[in-house]
Amino acid sequence: MKFSFRPTEGAFYELFSKAAQNLVKGTGLLNELALPGADVQSVSDRLSDVEHDSDEITHTLYKKINSTFITPFDREDIYQLGSHLDDVMDHLEAVGNLLYLYGLTELPSLPREMHELVTVLDQQAKITADAMPRLKSMKNLEEYWIEINRLENDGDRAYRMLLVRLFSGEYDALTVLKMKEVADELEAACDAFEHVANTVETITVKES
Amino acid sequence: MKFSFRPTEGAFYELFSKAAQNLVKGTGLLNELALPGADVQSVSDRLSDVEHDSDEITHTLYKKINSTFITPFDREDIYQLGSHLDDVMDHLEAVGNLLYLYGLTELPSLPREMHELVTVLDQQAKITADAMPRLKSMKNLEEYWIEINRLENDGDRAYRMLLVRLFSGEYDALTVLKMKEVADELEAACDAFEHVANTVETITVKES
Amino acid sequence: MKFSFRPTEGAFYELFSKAAQNLVKGTGLLNELALPGADVQSVSDRLSDVEHDSDEITHTLYKKINSTFITPFDREDIYQLGSHLDDVMDHLEAVGNLLYLYGLTELPSLPREMHELVTVLDQQAKITADAMPRLKSMKNLEEYWIEINRLENDGDRAYRMLLVRLFSGEYDALTVLKMKEVADELEAACDAFEHVANTVETITVKES
Repeated sequence: MKFSFRPTEGAFYELFSKAAQNLVKGTGLLNELALPGADVQSVSDRLSDVEHDSDEITHTLYKKINSTFITPFDREDIYQLGSHLDDVMDHLEAVGNLLYLYGLTELPSLPREMHELVTVLDQQAKITADAMPRLKSMKNLEEYWIEINRLENDGDRAYRMLLVRLFSGEYDALTVLKMKEVADELEAACDAFEHVANTVETITVKES
Repeated sequence: MKFSFRPTEGAFYELFSKAAQNLVKGTGLLNELALPGADVQSVSDRLSDVEHDSDEITHTLYKKINSTFITPFDREDIYQLGSHLDDVMDHLEAVGNLLYLYGLTELPSLPREMHELVTVLDQQAKITADAMPRLKSMKNLEEYWIEINRLENDGDRAYRMLLVRLFSGEYDALTVLKMKEVADELEAACDAFEHVANTVETITVKES
Repeated sequence: MKFSFRPTEGAFYELFSKAAQNLVKGTGLLNELALPGADVQSVSDRLSDVEHDSDEITHTLYKKINSTFITPFDREDIYQLGSHLDDVMDHLEAVGNLLYLYGLTELPSLPREMHELVTVLDQQAKITADAMPRLKSMKNLEEYWIEINRLENDGDRAYRMLLVRLFSGEYDALTVLKMKEVADELEAACDAFEHVANTVETITVKES
């Protein structure tokens, strides 16, 4: 394996930024589902495309870790950050995919609380994409992880109220089960954004 | 940021002990739910109060890690121990909150296996609170994590039998789904106590 | 505690190999369930036996870590590899146990997608058992983790289609809930194999 001895830190930050920008694309696509007459199959397909792109970014990142002699911070932390960003994308893709597979979009409308969760995810994606370039200077990151945690709390609350709605008797049992799967992926995406932020916090603490 | 150069280890052990004592309060409140005519809203509210208190302990701990030059053991392990203790509390609070939100307490009684799980959690909380002060000497901790693991196995068994009961046909599908959510939080709390114990084991092994 | 100062690496590799061979036994037992007239109670009992054996291997491994002065790679990675191998076994045992406890085998047959998941697990178990002895030389491991990840993707797809089938209206709500529990354990086993492979990857990267 060829090692590059000159630190090429820039490439790492660029890959993190690209991965986070893909998450913004992902939540943007989920936002489309709130529009009347949304084409769920098309949204699901485009989410899969973005997810494939994210997979390639992750693989490039992993290869870069193995072939770079001096990494900007601990190899394991780079791994973890990359893999958490990848996790978020997996959950976003699952949401679109399940909505399509379960035919849930034949319902007159999805519960309001589901759209609230998507809004939270969209905000998390945007501030994550904003924060990634700041990894280079390790400055002004605290506000980012505090805000992600605040949003994750909002997401938790929305998720809890979504379940109350699902279990209220408004829907039949099988529809409840299908929507619960979607809700769980939305909530897992919310959590995964928090894991990204926690990793950034860990890195910052170590370097400070 | 002001660093203290003199090791102030004591503060760390105190925060761990306080966090664990809050878990004893938490499981005590869940125990109240087994009493006839329990006021679920009041229990849920008081659980939220204890959870807020735990959040503050966790934040104080994190700040202390960042502002202390010499920590009693690896920064990351302190983080992990604090965050696992916090996780337990989150699950305990969720139990009370969901029972209240779903109106499950209008049932004549909760399944026996649910109370068994609460009993397991109560024992786990007490021996965790007993063990935390022993972190200072790193002595006599093995019995603690062995017992936590044994209790976690008991909890697993009770959880499995609870699901058998829930799926037996005794309850309608929506009630089953609601109680399953509560059961999952109880089981997650059981697991989270085990994660606390595993972290203590890891720390002890490193220091030995 | 008595420390051995001469590296006894061999014992570690042997324990990993034994643990992985037990997983092959486990998936083999699950394969039996696809046969007509399978005796589910017997399969579940034999799975429990294999699981107990795996528990002992894990404990022996942990003790060995604590009593060995020089370990072949980071103590924490040895822990993690051992605990992930143990996790797989726990999920395999749960599958047999739940099928038996819920009386699911009184159904004329289990959904085809469930057997597909077992087939994936069986392949994962075999290539994991093949890879463990190669840890010694740290050679030719990349193909192993790439294949595990590929299989995990297959498993994900099978799991998703299994849920579509379960939610299709073919089964009553309680049967769906029972089979969902089994499906979740199968999928968790698939994931756990991936965690094993990720740990092997991490170890290899560190040592290279």
